[in-house]
Amino acid sequence: MDFFFKPRGIAIIGATSNSLKGGYSILRNLMNGFKGGIYPVNPRYTEIEGMTCYPSVQKVPDPVDLAIVFVPAARVPQLIRECAKRGIPGVMIESGGFAETGEQGIALQETLKQIAKETGIRLWGPNCMGLVDAVHRYIFSFVSQSIWDERFVAGDISLIVQSGMLSGVFLIDAMTHGTMDVSKVCSIGNKADVDECDILEYLIGDPDTKVVGLYLESIPDGRRFMEICRRSQKPIVILKGGKSPKGAEAAMSHTASLAGNGAVISGAMKQVGVTEADDFKQMLDICRSLAMFPKLSPQSSGRVAVITYSGGAGIVSSDFIDALGLELADLSQTTRDAMKTVFPEWMPVSNPVDLWPAVESNGADKAYITAVRAACADPNVDAIFLHIFVGGFSLTPDMESVAEEVRTSGKPMFCFLMGNAEEAREVHIRTQRLGIPVFRELYRAAECIRAVFSYKKAIERRKPAVASPSPVSISDKFCKILGTEKGSLDEHLSKQILGACDIPVVEEKIISSAEEAQMTALGYGFPVVMKGLSPGEVHKSDLGLVRLGITTVNEAKSGFEALERAMEGKGNILIQRQIQGGLELIAGLVKDPQFGPCVMCGLGGILAEAIGDVVFAAAPLSQSEALDLIGRLRTQKLLNGFRGFPPLDRKALAQILVRLGELGCAYPRIQEIDINPLIVSKGRPVAVDASIIL
Amino acid sequence: MDFFFKPRGIAIIGATSNSLKGGYSILRNLMNGFKGGIYPVNPRYTEIEGMTCYPSVQKVPDPVDLAIVFVPAARVPQLIRECAKRGIPGVMIESGGFAETGEQGIALQETLKQIAKETGIRLWGPNCMGLVDAVHRYIFSFVSQSIWDERFVAGDISLIVQSGMLSGVFLIDAMTHGTMDVSKVCSIGNKADVDECDILEYLIGDPDTKVVGLYLESIPDGRRFMEICRRSQKPIVILKGGKSPKGAEAAMSHTASLAGNGAVISGAMKQVGVTEADDFKQMLDICRSLAMFPKLSPQSSGRVAVITYSGGAGIVSSDFIDALGLELADLSQTTRDAMKTVFPEWMPVSNPVDLWPAVESNGADKAYITAVRAACADPNVDAIFLHIFVGGFSLTPDMESVAEEVRTSGKPMFCFLMGNAEEAREVHIRTQRLGIPVFRELYRAAECIRAVFSYKKAIERRKPAVASPSPVSISDKFCKILGTEKGSLDEHLSKQILGACDIPVVEEKIISSAEEAQMTALGYGFPVVMKGLSPGEVHKSDLGLVRLGITTVNEAKSGFEALERAMEGKGNILIQRQIQGGLELIAGLVKDPQFGPCVMCGLGGILAEAIGDVVFAAAPLSQSEALDLIGRLRTQKLLNGFRGFPPLDRKALAQILVRLGELGCAYPRIQEIDINPLIVSKGRPVAVDASIIL
Repeated sequence: MDFFFKPRGIAIIGATSNSLKGGYSILRNLMNGFKGGIYPVNPRYTEIEGMTCYPSVQKVPDPVDLAIVFVPAARVPQLIRECAKRGIPGVMIESGGFAETGEQGIALQETLKQIAKETGIRLWGPNCMGLVDAVHRYIFSFVSQSIWDERFVAGDISLIVQSGMLSGVFLIDAMTHGTMDVSKVCSIGNKADVDECDILEYLIGDPDTKVVGLYLESIPDGRRFMEICRRSQKPIVILKGGKSPKGAEAAMSHTASLAGNGAVISGAMKQVGVTEADDFKQMLDICRSLAMFPKLSPQSSGRVAVITYSGGAGIVSSDFIDALGLELADLSQTTRDAMKTVFPEWMPVSNPVDLWPAVESNGADKAYITAVRAACADPNVDAIFLHIFVGGFSLTPDMESVAEEVRTSGKPMFCFLMGNAEEAREVHIRTQRLGIPVFRELYRAAECIRAVFSYKKAIERRKPAVASPSPVSISDKFCKILGTEKGSLDEHLSKQILGACDIPVVEEKIISSAEEAQMTALGYGFPVVMKGLSPGEVHKSDLGLVRLGITTVNEAKSGFEALERAMEGKGNILIQRQIQGGLELIAGLVKDPQFGPCVMCGLGGILAEAIGDVVFAAAPLSQSEALDLIGRLRTQKLLNGFRGFPPLDRKALAQILVRLGELGCAYPRIQEIDINPLIVSKGRPVAVDASIIL
Repeated sequence: MDFFFKPRGIAIIGATSNSLKGGYSILRNLMNGFKGGIYPVNPRYTEIEGMTCYPSVQKVPDPVDLAIVFVPAARVPQLIRECAKRGIPGVMIESGGFAETGEQGIALQETLKQIAKETGIRLWGPNCMGLVDAVHRYIFSFVSQSIWDERFVAGDISLIVQSGMLSGVFLIDAMTHGTMDVSKVCSIGNKADVDECDILEYLIGDPDTKVVGLYLESIPDGRRFMEICRRSQKPIVILKGGKSPKGAEAAMSHTASLAGNGAVISGAMKQVGVTEADDFKQMLDICRSLAMFPKLSPQSSGRVAVITYSGGAGIVSSDFIDALGLELADLSQTTRDAMKTVFPEWMPVSNPVDLWPAVESNGADKAYITAVRAACADPNVDAIFLHIFVGGFSLTPDMESVAEEVRTSGKPMFCFLMGNAEEAREVHIRTQRLGIPVFRELYRAAECIRAVFSYKKAIERRKPAVASPSPVSISDKFCKILGTEKGSLDEHLSKQILGACDIPVVEEKIISSAEEAQMTALGYGFPVVMKGLSPGEVHKSDLGLVRLGITTVNEAKSGFEALERAMEGKGNILIQRQIQGGLELIAGLVKDPQFGPCVMCGLGGILAEAIGDVVFAAAPLSQSEALDLIGRLRTQKLLNGFRGFPPLDRKALAQILVRLGELGCAYPRIQEIDINPLIVSKGRPVAVDASIIL
């Protein structure tokens, strides 16, 4: 991909001297920083801005590694063929008018794909803003060139942005505010050929990039995306647009891309250690926090010391720390003693540390540095959340000294800054250069503290991908069914197949007479359940075909007879042991259009209706990934035993999830598996009802 | 309170010519805007800054309505006595060194309270920053005076801030950024006498105030606070510090104030239509949104049209609208047709409206104004969420014309702005002056849209306070028990009392023999429950004194005998009908130190353990307030019936809550009532277990 990022020469196809047009901006932007050859191409000019303009790409001199195309869509395919012929390895198509514009455009885009396939030329775009590289001062884009000169500060965060306009406005907003410097911004548009995976792969190896942030509306090749993220040594942050049903609809109409199931994507991202963001600037804030603190000391766990000048800000910080699953550090006696030296007599030292009285009696510098030094040395403190104010009250400490203390300690510091607008801006920028991320809102700062510790834990937990899932050994009969049937398999058959995969299923049997019902019930012990299985019918309860709590042989007999009548000779009658359990779970497999077979696990019964606590992970899963998946359920409390019920045997549940994943991978015709309920009986989950859909 | 807000003359006790001291800043700040008499008081000077300095407050000429005191704490009581003697009605004590500094300070503060009580003088503070009134350019505060001159723009939001430092830094931050103008900022400090209620009452009648925002760590007189909020015609927004357990601890050590139960406070605030905020600037953002849109058209319900230049921002907006319980407006055909005129042929019009192609072909002005005009005229649209960009791409519409359109329509518009820092700041300020609140983060904008519609609904739902609760008519015996007993009443007695208040309780009876157990069980019908009631013992289950699911007369007999053995002759044995129900609820009454008796209602059973869905409201409740309370439970889905269970009879539950409130108000010795479980049987809730704690 180097020809996109470090081309030796660039042909600008559609260059023009009309300063209102994109083809002019591209040229000017290149002239403003690009050191390689710049070759305007346009048959209508012989010279633009003092440079030779070539009638066609054929005439452009060597070396030329990249063409940037900005001409009406209809002319693009022919021009790309010419580029391929000329031996140019990469083309950035910044023109719009393709898949985003309906049928004709979709056809044009298909042509582009076809050309890429035939010729091997790589196409970036179309309908994109191209690339901006702040480190090298490369602007391969038509973004307005007027604002660059004073503001072009290079940072170490690179962005991949699917939405064209966003990448541009984002960049301008972030860079002109001066508090959010970026390295490369890649606007990938319609992704006809080059996609987020290609670029992500490049960026995780890019020495100028410390963190990659992505705004995506679709991840068509979810598996490759996961694979790249899994091996990334750099933090990756993603804002996925279209996670809600309405948002997904909007995404669909925006880039005709399938937004996918938000919960599946979240699950897949967690599996590979990717941080999820919700909003645009929040994403950038998380990125810059991770860029500063990609690695934390192994034993640190998120215990925060809050050092503030305002009791109120300290209290609200504590509320946020609590809400976000962080912890207020329990300051050691040594720390308290050290801080005591700057506090007035009457003031007890606690966390949050309210420095105001110490500032009043000792000045800001001494008060702050004493507190920061003590917190840095405290083994109970993993991070310092510092509040500062500029613009009055003699409250601002010397941030250079503060930064020196934290740098030596290796602990992350996060700074919440308020103050007089102009001074605050200056201190904001200066403090960030010292390696301390600065925030103007308390909650955002707390979110970013969490992000840094969550990333640490996610990376520690991240497992290598399952190289090859264990083979599923089931009988030829079942193999044939899974290979040929269509639609929903009945409950009994579904459980037979699951049972063959070592998934514990309830004891049950198809019976054909009242006598058999009675004998079987006696064998199982009461209570038992009886169900009528109509072919292709999954809503048994709604049809009155489920009889729970049969406690006598007489009920067994009358139950059989009633079902037999109700089914009018069709289907089968099933009897099963009634599992008496505490907790109802659900488990299963879904086939996601972007991520393929994914294992699902959740709370069932009344909890499913009340809160829908369900988590997903891409299959196959290792046992330890499956345990992580279980650990992501919100209602952990119930899993650890409650009301006299023993705790869930997590290993047994993990084993079920592993098997579900293996089954889904081995039999790609499986569209869905639902185990509902999966009842936890004496701690062990047992599949009580299930269906496999082909 | 006018003497605090509009004094004719002010004595500054502790005035000094030392420009590093607060006593000097107060004086300079007054000279900078205050039009009335300014009288420095300090025996060590005869003149400060060209003004006569008086040796004592006695010598100050008339009229003088206010004294601002900034001297060491120990001298304050005597000086206040002098003020009282001099007939000054109000004193603002800005010095620290009182309750926030431990025992001695607490005693000093008590002395202040005593003086206020004895003399009738009103005391504001101590340990506060006083008052800033941007409309009148009054600064009754020692906040640094250097920054005011250019930035002093008056707004219509007034703030009450408990934390001293915060009020100052807040003000400076907000005002110097120029995007958040305020009217009055009141720093109330330790609240020895004047408290948030006094000031809130003043501000809801203040013509310069449209919205009141409060940062509070405690609301000691919760009932008065609620009463004022309930009759306020202006929106009130509160950020309550110390809602989490850790935050509450921090609040306690900050101002020695009891932070209280976050859920109780939230419940009380919802009852009286107060909006809750989470963070400081978020609170200001919500305040300014409500200041612009305090009233909406009666039929508007939160249907939002998103008009954007970026598909990506539109998609993420849709996600937020979904997540926050708003709705994407379904644009009418007329609207679509109107917008179609500026869209390219291939582009379908949908909501979010992605204007970029229309801007490309028609220019920003025409594209935006066409879309805004159509949305304004659309009866399906309640609010417009406009995205604009400044600083390139010729994307910015003429906001004056846009504002004119929305002003005519009366619909609220919210603007998400990105762009080149300097231009964006200018457009931000200018657009807000046009009556359109501007946001720099998408989520914040969405939160504020929600706040505006939530406030509308809250005010519509707000009920007048229950003037006098219905009397509770229970027998003399019960009256006496509630008036004299202490500790926990046993289950049976508790339910007898609740039953006497028309709360449905399970059929049950104290029995004294196995025969009586059998007879009663036969009378109730099986299954039945038997329980051993030890005096003062609430954890019956843990002691094995609960026998559920007794289904035969033999089990009844053996159950009685087993309990008799276990209880060793002490306590009583209770038999009760076993209620077969779907949903388990809990209900009760707590006595909150700030809000007094509060009714509680929540989900019980496994849901209580899993998610703790519990809501509170201050008692007494009207039937309709009780219905609102039930409507605030998160798991509404379950209340509407599920899995074949009929929906909850909400009126019956509301009736129980009303009765609980009446009981709590009538018998103030009741510390707590717990009904757990309150089982919903055939839709109707029945108290199955309960305890009253005195």
